[in-house]
Amino acid sequence: MSDVAAEAHVSVKTVSRVVNRAPGVRPDTEARVRAVIERIGFGRHGAPHTQLSRTQTIGLVIEDLANPFYSQLGAAVEREARIRQYQLITASAEGSPTRQRGILRGLVARRVDGVVIVPADDTPAGDLALGADDIPIVYIDRPVRGDAADTIVSDNAGGVRSAVEHLVAHGHHQIGFLGDHAEYWTARRRREAFLDVHTSLTLPGEPRVAMGPHTTESAVAALTQWGRGREPVTAVITGNNRVTLTVLHALRQLDLRLALVGYDDFELADLVEPPVTVVHADPAALGQKAAQQLFARLLGDESPPQTVVMPTRLIVRASGGPPARPRRRPNPGR
Amino acid sequence: MSDVAAEAHVSVKTVSRVVNRAPGVRPDTEARVRAVIERIGFGRHGAPHTQLSRTQTIGLVIEDLANPFYSQLGAAVEREARIRQYQLITASAEGSPTRQRGILRGLVARRVDGVVIVPADDTPAGDLALGADDIPIVYIDRPVRGDAADTIVSDNAGGVRSAVEHLVAHGHHQIGFLGDHAEYWTARRRREAFLDVHTSLTLPGEPRVAMGPHTTESAVAALTQWGRGREPVTAVITGNNRVTLTVLHALRQLDLRLALVGYDDFELADLVEPPVTVVHADPAALGQKAAQQLFARLLGDESPPQTVVMPTRLIVRASGGPPARPRRRPNPGR
Repeated sequence: MSDVAAEAHVSVKTVSRVVNRAPGVRPDTEARVRAVIERIGFGRHGAPHTQLSRTQTIGLVIEDLANPFYSQLGAAVEREARIRQYQLITASAEGSPTRQRGILRGLVARRVDGVVIVPADDTPAGDLALGADDIPIVYIDRPVRGDAADTIVSDNAGGVRSAVEHLVAHGHHQIGFLGDHAEYWTARRRREAFLDVHTSLTLPGEPRVAMGPHTTESAVAALTQWGRGREPVTAVITGNNRVTLTVLHALRQLDLRLALVGYDDFELADLVEPPVTVVHADPAALGQKAAQQLFARLLGDESPPQTVVMPTRLIVRASGGPPARPRRRPNPGR
Repeated sequence: MSDVAAEAHVSVKTVSRVVNRAPGVRPDTEARVRAVIERIGFGRHGAPHTQLSRTQTIGLVIEDLANPFYSQLGAAVEREARIRQYQLITASAEGSPTRQRGILRGLVARRVDGVVIVPADDTPAGDLALGADDIPIVYIDRPVRGDAADTIVSDNAGGVRSAVEHLVAHGHHQIGFLGDHAEYWTARRRREAFLDVHTSLTLPGEPRVAMGPHTTESAVAALTQWGRGREPVTAVITGNNRVTLTVLHALRQLDLRLALVGYDDFELADLVEPPVTVVHADPAALGQKAAQQLFARLLGDESPPQTVVMPTRLIVRASGGPPARPRRRPNPGR
C-alpha cells in the first residue's frame, strides 16, 4: 500500500480511503490513486496479510445461496472483493453450526485472507474462530456471542417499529406477527421488537405471535385462529422474505384480505395484488459494509471492533392500507 | 479413491458411481461407501488432481450472482462440491469477456482443481482456457466456440416450442417473442427456435420479435406496436426471467391482458394475477449436472468431451389461457 501512496504522492491513509470508498477524497486525487493501483497492482504489494503469502481470497459463509437475501448480499461482497482484485469463496451452512465450523476450518486451510460470516446461532465467537484467529472475521446479519467483534447488522427493531407504526396509522390495532423459526437471532430480535412496540403503543389485547418454520398450512392455521373471536386480526407483519411468501400463499388459499407488511423486500412485490409494503433491510448494503470493514482490517486497521447497525427503509406500496370492510352477503332481493 | 473402494469392498467404479450419484448402486452398498468416505475422508486420498497438491476448490464463473437463475445454479454446484468436501469460489463476469478472462486467470493462479463456467459470448475455448488447460473446465448454459468441450445446456429449442404449442392449443395465432439482448447465445437460440416453430406450425403473418435489453418503456413500445393493425398480438413469449419481469410491468402499465408464457420459472409466478405459465429450465439441475461432470473429470474420467442437453418443463398456471375477448364499453343505458 505504501508503494501506491508513494507513487500517487498521497498518504497511506488516503489510499485506504480510496480503496474503501470512504468520503473526503477529492475526485482528482481518487482518480490518480486508482490509476496507480490499476498500473502497479495494489493487491500484490499492499496489504500486510497478502505479504504473508495469503491468497487474495476472502470467504463468505451464509445460510443458503439460493435465498435472494443471501445471493444479493453475496453479490455485493463479491463486487467489493473484485474491485480490490480479490476472489470470493462462498459456502452455505444451511443452519448447521457443525457444518459452519467445518466450512470455516476449510477456509482457513485454504489460507483465505479473511472471512465474512452469518454466524450460526449461539455459537461463541471463540468457538467459531477455531484457529482462524490470525485472520480477520466480520460477522454479518447476526452478532456472535462472546467477545466484541466486527459486526454488521440491520436495524431490526427500527424496521419492525416502522411496520407497526405504518399499520397503526392506517387504522389497524389488531396486528399479528408471523416470524421465522425462533432459533434464528433475527427472528427472535424481530419478535422482541414487535412485543416492545405493542406495549409502547398500548395496542389492545394480547399480542398475537406465531414463530416458524412456516408451511402454508401452519400459516393458514395461525391466520384462521387470529381471525376468530371479537377482535379479529386485521393486519399481519412477517419476519422475513420466506415467511412473506408463505403468508401470501395462505391469504390466497383463504381468499382473505388482511393488511400486510413484509420484512425484506422481494422481487415482484409490486406485481402482487395488492402490491406489498415491505421493510427493506438492504442486503446489498449489509454485504458492502461488511466487506469494506474486512478490507479495512486487511489494510491494517487495528481500531477496536465495531458494531454497525444499518438503517432499514419502509417501502410503501398498497398492502398496508386500511382494514377491509366486513364483507356483506349480496342482497339477493335486489 | 482406491482406499475407499478397498475399505468398502467394492470396485473403484462403484465408488465413482456413489460419489457422482449415478444410478445402478444398491442402497445398502451406497450407504456403506458413504460411511467409509465419511470415516476416512475421500477428498484427501482420492482424486488424482488433489494428489498433485491442488486445493480441493473449484471455481464457478457466472454472469451475476444476484440473478436468481444463477444463484440457484450456484447453490446446486456448491452442494455437489460440499458433499465431496470441496469448496467453491464464485465470481460474476457481468457480461464482460475481459473480466471473465481475468477471473479465470485468477482462479488458475489460486490453483483451483477445475472450473464450471458460463462462457461469455463468442469467446473461443482456447482463448478462455489460457493456461488453464491442465485443469478440467465444464461449460454451462452456453457452449463455447471451437473445440469440443464438456458442455451442459438446456433444451432451448424444446422449451420455446412447448411455449408456442401451448399458446396455439389455447387459440393463439398471433404470438410475439420478446428476447433478451442478442449478444447472448441463449437469447439468439431461443429467437431462432421461435422463428422455426412459427414456420413449422405455419402461423399466419410475419413473426414478431423484439430483442432487448428491455426497459419497461421499450417493452411497452413493442407491445403497443404489436397491438396495432388488423392482426394484433394476443400472446407473448419472453426470452428469460428478466424479460418476464419487464413484460409484467409493461402489461400492468398498459392495463393490458395478453396471454404470456415466460422463459424461466420465478418465485411468486403463482401469486401474480393471473399466475404465470413458464418454461422451467431448471438451473439447479444444470448446476448439479455440470458439477457432476467436473468431478467425474477430477476422478480421472478421460472419455471424449460430451454435450448434455437438459430437458425443460412447461409449468402450466393460467397466463397462457385463451385470447381475451375484446373489451366492450359498459352500456350506460342499462
